[in-house]
Amino acid sequence: MAEVLFPLPPGSVIGIVGGGQLGRMMALAAARLGFDVAVLAREAGSPAGRVSAREVVGGYGDPEALRKLAEMSDVLTFEFENVPGAAIAALEADGFAVAPPGKALTISQDRVTEKTFLNDHGLPTVAFMPIDSAADLPHALQTLGAPALLKTRREGYDGKGQAWITNAVDEDQAFVRIGGQPAILEARASFVRELSVIAARGRDGVMLAYPIAQNHHEHGVLRRSIAPAQAPDATRQEAERIAFTLLQALDYVGVIGVELFELADGTLLVNEFAPRVHNTGHWTADGCEVDQFEQHIRAVAGWPLGPTTPLAQVEMLNLLGDEAHDWAALAADPSARLWLYGKRDAAPGRKMGHVNRLSPLKG
Amino acid sequence: MAEVLFPLPPGSVIGIVGGGQLGRMMALAAARLGFDVAVLAREAGSPAGRVSAREVVGGYGDPEALRKLAEMSDVLTFEFENVPGAAIAALEADGFAVAPPGKALTISQDRVTEKTFLNDHGLPTVAFMPIDSAADLPHALQTLGAPALLKTRREGYDGKGQAWITNAVDEDQAFVRIGGQPAILEARASFVRELSVIAARGRDGVMLAYPIAQNHHEHGVLRRSIAPAQAPDATRQEAERIAFTLLQALDYVGVIGVELFELADGTLLVNEFAPRVHNTGHWTADGCEVDQFEQHIRAVAGWPLGPTTPLAQVEMLNLLGDEAHDWAALAADPSARLWLYGKRDAAPGRKMGHVNRLSPLKG
Repeated sequence: MAEVLFPLPPGSVIGIVGGGQLGRMMALAAARLGFDVAVLAREAGSPAGRVSAREVVGGYGDPEALRKLAEMSDVLTFEFENVPGAAIAALEADGFAVAPPGKALTISQDRVTEKTFLNDHGLPTVAFMPIDSAADLPHALQTLGAPALLKTRREGYDGKGQAWITNAVDEDQAFVRIGGQPAILEARASFVRELSVIAARGRDGVMLAYPIAQNHHEHGVLRRSIAPAQAPDATRQEAERIAFTLLQALDYVGVIGVELFELADGTLLVNEFAPRVHNTGHWTADGCEVDQFEQHIRAVAGWPLGPTTPLAQVEMLNLLGDEAHDWAALAADPSARLWLYGKRDAAPGRKMGHVNRLSPLKG
Repeated sequence: MAEVLFPLPPGSVIGIVGGGQLGRMMALAAARLGFDVAVLAREAGSPAGRVSAREVVGGYGDPEALRKLAEMSDVLTFEFENVPGAAIAALEADGFAVAPPGKALTISQDRVTEKTFLNDHGLPTVAFMPIDSAADLPHALQTLGAPALLKTRREGYDGKGQAWITNAVDEDQAFVRIGGQPAILEARASFVRELSVIAARGRDGVMLAYPIAQNHHEHGVLRRSIAPAQAPDATRQEAERIAFTLLQALDYVGVIGVELFELADGTLLVNEFAPRVHNTGHWTADGCEVDQFEQHIRAVAGWPLGPTTPLAQVEMLNLLGDEAHDWAALAADPSARLWLYGKRDAAPGRKMGHVNRLSPLKG
């Protein structure tokens, strides 16, 4: 394989692991810049594959499928983080360009590893303890206080694989309920709101952050983001410090999403980070000159980052399950900038699209 | 074939005749709204085909290729106007949904027919006369005054197939130079600037126009557009009146581009119209909530039109030929919103991409 030379010229191929909406929106951004896209998707005709030049069908952890994608691409990137670390490491070892680095994915895959990494770099989280078996729970609950949140260490997203524990009866049931697998117990954060910061780091080490978003979850799934969030300068600066510290610690290239809890005294705790474009950054697609998707493509292609200045105040609303059936009403709403992901099956709670509503910037 | 029911639901297939940059940008807009795209392109792996779910390879005038595209699509549209009228009429007759209507393409294909149609609907143009042979030229030149512009009636764009005539020697040479084919002689317009208006008409008859653009051509090719153009209210209203009159006269569905000459006294003459998205509307992709590409998809899919309000002042600069080789410098320019079309061969003068530069809206 020839050595990859950055910046990649237009016409180069961006390989995206994952065929869903994040891959689709990355592919659209790559096309704008004159790149071709190849995607690895679990099924042919995926949302991302239908807007890309090439589509490889295979499992995200299938080393052969990953290698096939890598061989037709000038750089590999990801729409989600649960790709086996060993498979990525093998590609990196063989000289394929991968961004963000496999290390970032591996760390984010395990909640204990992730929080330990964050704390080791001076980034605060809730108190937590690893839970290897139900026997660990009584001591951990005593240490962290009740109620506390039991989560699987790996996998699980959008509120799945989680259980609150308040007493001994819960302890017994909770560990079973999350599948009896290695877990983490997290102290409850008495946060006043959830924020997130979307930031990027280029191959030249330059880092930029978008204005922070304020997020509202329902049943563990993101419902709404409002950005730029109203917040004191100190909060915005602290969110940037957290994001930039993390990007440097990971020797990161690409866009990262960092979820934050804001406590009553203004302290920010890191909930988790996602080594990819992030649902709470979808507002940028209508609210900024360069959105998170183009920013990610710029970074992984070795291009300079673009400006993150907002053009408008945006409220982003996710369309879950059959809410996307309201497309006709949303299309008729002049204030609704509509995104639909091209998914065939509107299963309950499934992210089918989103709506950005713009208003003039405040202050 | 089942009857087409508008509005088309997401997941429907938009068929685009043409595989170039206009088709590509329409395909990206269609993807945003959850549509699939099929394109008809002269060669496999076209700029539009590489971002679409399906690509049919064939000539734009090939009835079989057009039918193949129509059969896999819920509605057919065009990235350019020189598709044989008979081929479109055959598809319309067979019940395929086509937008804009074949009539609009047919009229715009012939400069004499086009200007006659415009004048018949009260829309002013320069004075003109049809030229069937060189023998018609002396009288026409006497009538219209010298110098006058000889153009082929059909085909020809970006300044090709045109010749200025000032005297008898020119007459002899000019008709040969444009290929000895049926032509039009146009009186010189003493215009002070070139403007254009991009407008749209939905299947419900609703019409909306974007703010007018001021355009600068070099060697017959668009170099730069500035929008919204500074202009008196009366000028903007007259541009809208022209566009809306034309849209209604054509029973049009989709986006139309109307090129205008502004005379010293403020009078607007129609130069020509393009029954499609238009290069002078590329500024909308970074300057408006709903750009001309999404607007066109909305219209042809039977969706309500979106707002045409500008978010910013934009200067659009075309990248011609090897100017696109400056992509690295443009990528590093924080003021340049870059679009590259994924064309392999940067032939001299070929439209390879464009740059939008945003600034705050004036007054």
